[in-house]
Amino acid sequence: MTTTKFLLDESRMPRHWYNIAADLPVALPPPLHPGTMQPVGPDDLAPLFPMELILQEVSTEREVPIPEPVREVFKLWRPAPLFRAHRLEKALGTPAKIYYKYEGVSPAGSHKPNTAIPQAWYNAQAGIRKLTTETGAGQWGSSLAFAGALFDLDVKIFQVRVSYDQKPYRRALMETYGATCVASPSNETNSGRAILAERPDHPGSLGIAISEAVEVAATHDDTKYALGSVLNHVLLHQTIVGQEAMLQMEMAGDDPDVIVGCTGGGSNFAGIVFPFLGQQLRGGGKTKKRRIVAVEPAACPSLTRGKYAYDFGDTSHLTPLVKMHTLGSTFTPPGFHAGGLRYHGMAPLVSHLKQLDLIEATAYTQNECFAAGVLFGRTEGIVPAPEANHAVKGAIVEALRCKAEGRSEVILFNLCGHGHFDMAAYSNFHAGKLVDQQYDEKELAMALAGLPSVPA
Amino acid sequence: MTTTKFLLDESRMPRHWYNIAADLPVALPPPLHPGTMQPVGPDDLAPLFPMELILQEVSTEREVPIPEPVREVFKLWRPAPLFRAHRLEKALGTPAKIYYKYEGVSPAGSHKPNTAIPQAWYNAQAGIRKLTTETGAGQWGSSLAFAGALFDLDVKIFQVRVSYDQKPYRRALMETYGATCVASPSNETNSGRAILAERPDHPGSLGIAISEAVEVAATHDDTKYALGSVLNHVLLHQTIVGQEAMLQMEMAGDDPDVIVGCTGGGSNFAGIVFPFLGQQLRGGGKTKKRRIVAVEPAACPSLTRGKYAYDFGDTSHLTPLVKMHTLGSTFTPPGFHAGGLRYHGMAPLVSHLKQLDLIEATAYTQNECFAAGVLFGRTEGIVPAPEANHAVKGAIVEALRCKAEGRSEVILFNLCGHGHFDMAAYSNFHAGKLVDQQYDEKELAMALAGLPSVPA
Repeated sequence: MTTTKFLLDESRMPRHWYNIAADLPVALPPPLHPGTMQPVGPDDLAPLFPMELILQEVSTEREVPIPEPVREVFKLWRPAPLFRAHRLEKALGTPAKIYYKYEGVSPAGSHKPNTAIPQAWYNAQAGIRKLTTETGAGQWGSSLAFAGALFDLDVKIFQVRVSYDQKPYRRALMETYGATCVASPSNETNSGRAILAERPDHPGSLGIAISEAVEVAATHDDTKYALGSVLNHVLLHQTIVGQEAMLQMEMAGDDPDVIVGCTGGGSNFAGIVFPFLGQQLRGGGKTKKRRIVAVEPAACPSLTRGKYAYDFGDTSHLTPLVKMHTLGSTFTPPGFHAGGLRYHGMAPLVSHLKQLDLIEATAYTQNECFAAGVLFGRTEGIVPAPEANHAVKGAIVEALRCKAEGRSEVILFNLCGHGHFDMAAYSNFHAGKLVDQQYDEKELAMALAGLPSVPA
Repeated sequence: MTTTKFLLDESRMPRHWYNIAADLPVALPPPLHPGTMQPVGPDDLAPLFPMELILQEVSTEREVPIPEPVREVFKLWRPAPLFRAHRLEKALGTPAKIYYKYEGVSPAGSHKPNTAIPQAWYNAQAGIRKLTTETGAGQWGSSLAFAGALFDLDVKIFQVRVSYDQKPYRRALMETYGATCVASPSNETNSGRAILAERPDHPGSLGIAISEAVEVAATHDDTKYALGSVLNHVLLHQTIVGQEAMLQMEMAGDDPDVIVGCTGGGSNFAGIVFPFLGQQLRGGGKTKKRRIVAVEPAACPSLTRGKYAYDFGDTSHLTPLVKMHTLGSTFTPPGFHAGGLRYHGMAPLVSHLKQLDLIEATAYTQNECFAAGVLFGRTEGIVPAPEANHAVKGAIVEALRCKAEGRSEVILFNLCGHGHFDMAAYSNFHAGKLVDQQYDEKELAMALAGLPSVPA
C-alpha cells in the first residue's frame, strides 16, 4: 500500500495569516463592554493584551504578516505534513478520497503552538514578562508554557482542578517548560476565593479558570493574559494550517468537496477552514462550493443546541460579552475526555458563519468518536487526541455517505493533535468503561434562560 | 534566533540498510547453541524467525535492500528531521555546534518502528500470522503492535509486570493498535509458571519476558518471535537513521567530531553510529577519525561495568549465548525510568566495537539525565524520552568540554524518542522525588560469577 505524504518546502511556509474578516458578507457583531453594554474599543482590552494583538483582533485587513522570529520557531515543526489516508479509505471501502492535515507534529503534540508562539512573541516585544492563562486537560497550557520558555516569559496557568488532580502528566509537561500551574478555583484571586467560599471542593471549570487568569492580568501591570481559542486573533493565527493545506491540496491535484474539523472554542476548525472559505467568499459563484462541517461533542453541543446570543466568556463575568452560540456561561459540561472541547461557548467568527449558513454543524458521542480514532490508529498509524477523534468521526461519516451514494468526493480534515497524553481515555474505551455522559437538559434550559439581556 | 532543520526529500530516503559486518576488522564471535555450546546455524533459529531475517542476522553483505512495502510505510514519518540545536548551544555558551537527529516523529514516538515494520513485513511475507515479543515500559511493544496493525499480524506482548501495573498508558497504545498484552511472569508459559511458583508476586524483568515470548514462538508453528534490540538484524534496520543523518550533515556542510547515542540493547546507538563508523573503517587513515560515545545509565552499566563474555539473553536460558558486555542474566537492574535501557546485556556488535576500542562508553545517573532533558525541552522545545535524556546529557558534557577547551567541535546525537508517555517521571523529577537508585554490588558480583562457562 502506497503512502502519500505532501510536504511543503520551508520556503513555501506562509508569510501572512489570512483574516476572514476582510471577506465576510456581513460584519461580525462587536464585543460589548460588560459594564456599559457598548462596543468595546482597543483601550478597553489594553489591560489584558498587548496592542499588536488587539489590533489583530479588530483588523479587517485580509493579510496579516507573520513576524520572522515567529516563523523561525514554527520551523521546528512546520510546514506540517498532509497525508492521503489510503489505508483508512481501503478499510472503509469508500470511493471517497480522504486527506488529513496533521498538526500533532509540534513539540506540544497539537495545533495550539500555532497561536501560543505569536502571542508570546508579541507580548515579549511589548516588554511584558509575565503571562497568565487557563487550561483544562492542558493542551493549551503546555503550548503556552513551551512558547514562554522560548521567549523567556514567566507563564502562570490556572488549570481546572479536576484535570490538575487527575491528569498530572500534562502538568508535568507545563512544569518541564518552566511554567507554574495552579489548581483552579484557587485562593489567588477574588473570583477563585468567592467560588471556594461557596463550595471548597469545587472541581473547577474552564469558565472559572478564565476568570482567575483574566483577574490576575487585569490587576497586575506587568502581566497580560493569553487565550488559546475563541478570539479573532487566535483563529487568525491558526489559518497557517489551512493556507498550507491549500498548497498541499494543489500538490495532490485535488480540491476538497467537504472539509471537516472538530470544534470546542473553534480555533483548529477555523485554522483549516477559513482560507478555503475565504477563497469561496471572494470568488462568488465562480469558485467551487465546498461543504464545511464542524463536529462537536454531543455532551457539549454549543453549535447544534446552543443559542446564538451575547454571552460572557467566563463564569465570573469579567470578560466582554460576545455574540456566539452558547450553552450559557453557567453551564457545566459533563466530564468527557475531549477536554479541549468542553467550553460553553464558541468562537464568534465560527458562530457568525454558522448563522450565515456558510458552515454546517453536527455532534457525536465520545464512544463513537473513540471507535473512529481506534480505526484511524490501526490503519493510518497515528493515534489521535480525543478532540481530533471528532474530526476523524466526521470524516468517516462523510466517506461512508460517499460509499452509499457511490460518489468519489474529496474529503479533507484536520487531525489537530496526537493522543499520546490521552491513553488513559483509550484504556477506558478498551475496557468498555467509557460512558457517554449526557448533559442535564434542565441545567441547559436554566443556563440559557440566564443569558444576559443586551439592549438591541 | 534561527531554526535550522535539515529535511531530506522522500526520494533520498535510503534504499539499503548498511551492514557493518562487511567492514569489521575482526569478525564478530558467533552465537552458541545453549545445549551444544557450538555455533548456531540458520536452522537453529528457524523456530523463532523467518529465514529472511536469519539471513540478515548472519549476512556480511555491506548493503541489504530495504523492501519497497517497508519504505512505503516509513514514508508515514521518514525521512526524519535533523536539527542544529542553536538554542541549546546558546544556553550552554559553547563554541561547539550541536546537531540532533530526531526519531520521535514516528507514530509510536520513538525509533523502534524502524525495525518493527520490516520485522512484521518479513514475517507476513513468510506466511506467519502471529508474533510474540516482550516489552518493558512499552516503546518496543507499541511499535511492534503498530507494525502488526499495518501488516495484519496478531501480536502478543509479554509486558514486565511492574510496567503492566504501573504504566497502563503504553499498554493502552498497544491495545489501540490491536495487540494483546500479558503481564509477565504469566501462567501462559513454563518459564512464567516456574517463576510464579517460586514467587507469586514477582515484578518481572525483561529477561523473563523474553523467555516467555521465545517459549511461545518455539512451541507454536504459526508463531514467530520478534526482538526490539540486541540482534544484528535489528541493529541493521536502525542504520537508516545514520544513513539519513550522513546526508543531512552533508547538507549542513559539517562533519561530526563526536557522535553520541544512548545504549540499552544498543539499537538506536548502532542506528546513528554504524554508517559513520563504517565509512571510517573503510577509509583507513584517509577518513576523519570521529569519537563515538555510548551513554548508559549508571544503574545498569553493562558497557562500563559489565564483563565481555558469552551469556544468555534471557533469564530461563532459552536463547543462544552471545558474546557481549553483560551484567549477568540473573542481574536485576533497579527500577529507574529509562525502561528501554534496563537490560543486563548489550548488542554483540556494540560490545565487539567497544572491545576493539572503536567506541567509548560512559554512564550517568538518572537525575543528571533528567536535568539535561529539561534544559533541552526549555531550549529546543522537544521533551525527550528518559532514554534519550542520556544522549542529551552525553552531548551536553561534550559541548561543555568544548567550551572549557575553547574548541568548536561538531557534536551529533540521536534523540531517539519524545517523552510524552513518560511525564510521570518528569513529574517526580520536578517534585525532587526522583531517586538515583544504585544497583547492588554484591548482586552484580554474584551475577557475574554465575556467567556460563564456555569451552575456549
